[in-house]
Amino acid sequence: MNKFTSIQDVPNLQELLTVARDCKQQPFANKHIGTNKTLGLLFFNPSLRTRMSTQKAAYNLGMDVIVMNVGSDSWTLETRDGVIMDGSATEHIKEAAAVMGEYCDILGLRTFAGLVDKQLDYSEDVLEKFIRYSGKPVISLESATRHPLQSLADVFTIEAHKTTTRPKVVLTWAPHPKALPQAVPNSFAEWAIAMNYNVVIAHPVGYELSGEFTRGASITHNQDEALHNADFVYAKNWSSFHNYGTILSHDKGWMITAEKMSCTNNAKFMHCLPVRRNQIVSDAVLDSPNSIVTEEAGNRVVSAQAVLRTMIESLA
Amino acid sequence: MNKFTSIQDVPNLQELLTVARDCKQQPFANKHIGTNKTLGLLFFNPSLRTRMSTQKAAYNLGMDVIVMNVGSDSWTLETRDGVIMDGSATEHIKEAAAVMGEYCDILGLRTFAGLVDKQLDYSEDVLEKFIRYSGKPVISLESATRHPLQSLADVFTIEAHKTTTRPKVVLTWAPHPKALPQAVPNSFAEWAIAMNYNVVIAHPVGYELSGEFTRGASITHNQDEALHNADFVYAKNWSSFHNYGTILSHDKGWMITAEKMSCTNNAKFMHCLPVRRNQIVSDAVLDSPNSIVTEEAGNRVVSAQAVLRTMIESLA
Amino acid sequence: MNKFTSIQDVPNLQELLTVARDCKQQPFANKHIGTNKTLGLLFFNPSLRTRMSTQKAAYNLGMDVIVMNVGSDSWTLETRDGVIMDGSATEHIKEAAAVMGEYCDILGLRTFAGLVDKQLDYSEDVLEKFIRYSGKPVISLESATRHPLQSLADVFTIEAHKTTTRPKVVLTWAPHPKALPQAVPNSFAEWAIAMNYNVVIAHPVGYELSGEFTRGASITHNQDEALHNADFVYAKNWSSFHNYGTILSHDKGWMITAEKMSCTNNAKFMHCLPVRRNQIVSDAVLDSPNSIVTEEAGNRVVSAQAVLRTMIESLA
Repeated sequence: MNKFTSIQDVPNLQELLTVARDCKQQPFANKHIGTNKTLGLLFFNPSLRTRMSTQKAAYNLGMDVIVMNVGSDSWTLETRDGVIMDGSATEHIKEAAAVMGEYCDILGLRTFAGLVDKQLDYSEDVLEKFIRYSGKPVISLESATRHPLQSLADVFTIEAHKTTTRPKVVLTWAPHPKALPQAVPNSFAEWAIAMNYNVVIAHPVGYELSGEFTRGASITHNQDEALHNADFVYAKNWSSFHNYGTILSHDKGWMITAEKMSCTNNAKFMHCLPVRRNQIVSDAVLDSPNSIVTEEAGNRVVSAQAVLRTMIESLA
Repeated sequence: MNKFTSIQDVPNLQELLTVARDCKQQPFANKHIGTNKTLGLLFFNPSLRTRMSTQKAAYNLGMDVIVMNVGSDSWTLETRDGVIMDGSATEHIKEAAAVMGEYCDILGLRTFAGLVDKQLDYSEDVLEKFIRYSGKPVISLESATRHPLQSLADVFTIEAHKTTTRPKVVLTWAPHPKALPQAVPNSFAEWAIAMNYNVVIAHPVGYELSGEFTRGASITHNQDEALHNADFVYAKNWSSFHNYGTILSHDKGWMITAEKMSCTNNAKFMHCLPVRRNQIVSDAVLDSPNSIVTEEAGNRVVSAQAVLRTMIESLA
Repeated sequence: MNKFTSIQDVPNLQELLTVARDCKQQPFANKHIGTNKTLGLLFFNPSLRTRMSTQKAAYNLGMDVIVMNVGSDSWTLETRDGVIMDGSATEHIKEAAAVMGEYCDILGLRTFAGLVDKQLDYSEDVLEKFIRYSGKPVISLESATRHPLQSLADVFTIEAHKTTTRPKVVLTWAPHPKALPQAVPNSFAEWAIAMNYNVVIAHPVGYELSGEFTRGASITHNQDEALHNADFVYAKNWSSFHNYGTILSHDKGWMITAEKMSCTNNAKFMHCLPVRRNQIVSDAVLDSPNSIVTEEAGNRVVSAQAVLRTMIESLA
């Protein structure tokens, strides 16, 4: 595995889950394999879980870690080709990526959707250029359109809790005061579908995700219907893909409440965090024993460690 | 010891000082005990000594360290219960603390008094919620009302320099252009009293600290009288506790000068740093051989290492 | 070597280059020598290469590293003597440096020229005070007037690529939208001259560097003449030394283009990075096989590691 940006980069998902299980059970059993390997973590945006869990995963493997807040710790980057750099950007991504590739064995990159130019966001311009110019294996720490380390942690968590072979997994839109990217729902959908779960996606009219991520899922505008008999409820806000980056609804009726959870099959509640309480989900649900968001976040160490371990083994 | 937020958390102060002395003499003798243990250091405020000394202490014990500037590196936190999170705060402290608890074996937390709402500050809301929700041992890296790692370093430094069994230790207010918290004087007072020093606290009228911290100390408004025959002079500014968070005096007559030091018993000068020269203390005193502020700051490694070591031993 | 701020601090340049070659070939061969040694890296300004490469070098030697963004992570510093600190600066450099010296075995310091007060910048006020008050070996991570880790990487890179004993090395000014310090050209000039290269410095009228750095170099205002038969072209912008800190020219005719490179002896193109494309140098040159800027930046690990290793050996 020489990059990890989406499920398409995973040669064998079941094998990766097996490695993840092993990392969970014996986190320090492979502490030697990262010796003399440096992981560079580059953040264009704030991060808590990703930043901490990926560092922890690297330490568990004995790696050295260098964390950079790109743009505040270092320089602002130009990403366009052929421009005369007489503006505010002080360095081109070609040089920045190449140089970071000199210093690190594996690079992790966090970048968000701008939510203005759909084509630019969905081309994954920054991520793709980092891969091209760094010359080193690159892990997406969330990109404009996907969040694969989160999705791997999500399916790992579902595997640990599922009580049937093919659980009903509902991804439901929920309201939020700000326009958010589609990265998490896109990514969760494609991983959950790849796991062959019974995936149902519920959202208001106009919130359809790009079809490339949702092929194989049932899509409905009726949240109640979706939640019926669900085994897992994955709530998340996103802004419109078709009317790109806009908020089409603030409908509080889509918030996940205890009443709604009562129609499910005693479903586990999931969210990638950070979550806005009493907007996305009520306190009662989040504080209930059925909420597994903390364990899900804890499994971010497991997913990062499984990916790092697999990558290091590919390097050798 | 499963938390370290005040002297009340220390089961045996003399034992902790013995561990500290051992850490000072042989800083690397216990490098194995932190193996596979991760310390998370969370800063809501700037820090130099705490940030560096606690990292150094953790490295001396072989721990891995993750440093987070909460709010800039990660997200802004909501701390109130039951609110609808439709404002600027993107994550609730319940989730943030629980998740950090998943990633770290011990958490250190730095948070300051807001100096607006006395009851909120003195309830130690953020610190207490972190302890409750993280599920892991928490070390205060200075909180709204106390700075126990500083105080431990302070009494350790006094122990190394005292020439009598029960030295006269004077904590004196000194002027400062900005309103500062009471955390350092509160904390120093309770530790120095617990050490059974002859503690005298001198400050202008209206600067009385909360009685819970000063029981057992003599309190005076006459600095000259206080300094007479002092063995240690600990200068510090604080804002008013009773007229909460306000500055009642800019009286430069309270600055510690060479002339004032001449009335002492050749006293050592102490301050937690950072210190404003020629406001709190004159250059002449701070640059004199009697100033032990650098050694005192150096002992922050010792105090952090003693606490971390004791905590790790409790974990096992 | 108890400080590394300029080539004057290097007792034997050839020996240092030999250590550097050894670090390049066997980066992990000396991983034990940094055990229990802490490197403190203090940044007053943004940095990418220096920040990452120096961390990497320290990890290669088994050191612990503490990184501080002075002023945002910690406090704003007062550097003047004798002032009453009633303004915005919260700590004096005397205390800050002394305390960091308590926590670290070696300190690295990044500070830039203010470009307002020539005498202040060229006195290296902050760097010199850190050296004086920290009591520990100090490495310049770029100061107001020099960038010695960059220059060591530069000459190391030239040594690896030169095909004649005494290559013609051209340092040429190139245009830039902002006023930049003279640190890199000053430093490169003195190191290249010390290597006994045939050093030619080309710049527009008024851009003369301070004579103390350029003694032994040929200086010309004719870039074409300078580039003729050059073996290495080192492009860099700087602001005027004599009309201190001002921009005297935006002449795009000084940009390095493929046409200009064609007059050289198939010269290698060098730059310290970050570089503004199509201002300093055209895309065609930077993307050509003759550009060695990435390797040059990669050698920043080598130069930092050679200096750290030499310093650690001096400590013992």
